[in-house]
Amino acid sequence: MTEPQAAVAEANQRFYRAFEALNLGEMDKVWARGEHVKCVHPGWPLLSGWVAVRASWEAIFNGTGEIRFTIADVQVTVHGALAWVTCTENILSQIGERVAVTSVLATNIFEHGPDGWLMLHHHASHVLGGGTQA
Amino acid sequence: MTEPQAAVAEANQRFYRAFEALNLGEMDKVWARGEHVKCVHPGWPLLSGWVAVRASWEAIFNGTGEIRFTIADVQVTVHGALAWVTCTENILSQIGERVAVTSVLATNIFEHGPDGWLMLHHHASHVLGGGTQA
Repeated sequence: MTEPQAAVAEANQRFYRAFEALNLGEMDKVWARGEHVKCVHPGWPLLSGWVAVRASWEAIFNGTGEIRFTIADVQVTVHGALAWVTCTENILSQIGERVAVTSVLATNIFEHGPDGWLMLHHHASHVLGGGTQA
Repeated sequence: MTEPQAAVAEANQRFYRAFEALNLGEMDKVWARGEHVKCVHPGWPLLSGWVAVRASWEAIFNGTGEIRFTIADVQVTVHGALAWVTCTENILSQIGERVAVTSVLATNIFEHGPDGWLMLHHHASHVLGGGTQA
């Protein structure tokens, strides 16, 4: 892994640490600002702009008792000041009384600026069991 | 929409035209080549590298009788020689005897090179009815 790839992988880890900690202040540090910031939670419609994205994290954090991530298959592509990561999120979560184990595939886009690599885009979707693979 | 944004939107349209036409030759022209090319079909695991991605299109095209896209909510962000698009794919498809109408959210990443804007990454996932929106 090159140095920029490692820095992007570290930014990606920070994102999942903030998510796992259900810590909105840490999540604030992970993301870029602006209208071009976008987020797709599994099964949700697209959220556009930092205000909507942040509100979604606030709602998710408030509604989540405990969540644990095991991140696998991390692949980083760096393209100048832009980079994207694909990874599998193996998630153990507790929402209300329900404990769930799910596998989610994520595409995370990051931008490099004065504050390092910040997330611009998060697209997460469930991997269905028995999906056809060509 | 700026000129580069319009060119990316056009590349995005070419992708859906090739898909709708179930035309592998046209799909070949839409995509970049290489190991960093990736694709997530709705519910599928990640496919890495052009060979695996192309094989998936071949399998999908062979298994699909008819498919019609209405693409909505197209948002284009250009970042030098890299760009990404989010859009909603409203899909009418016939697989075997079954006709289905589905709504899919896509993140499509494109790279600009000598052959224009080529697709590097396609992540598509179902939007579930009644998804919570913060």
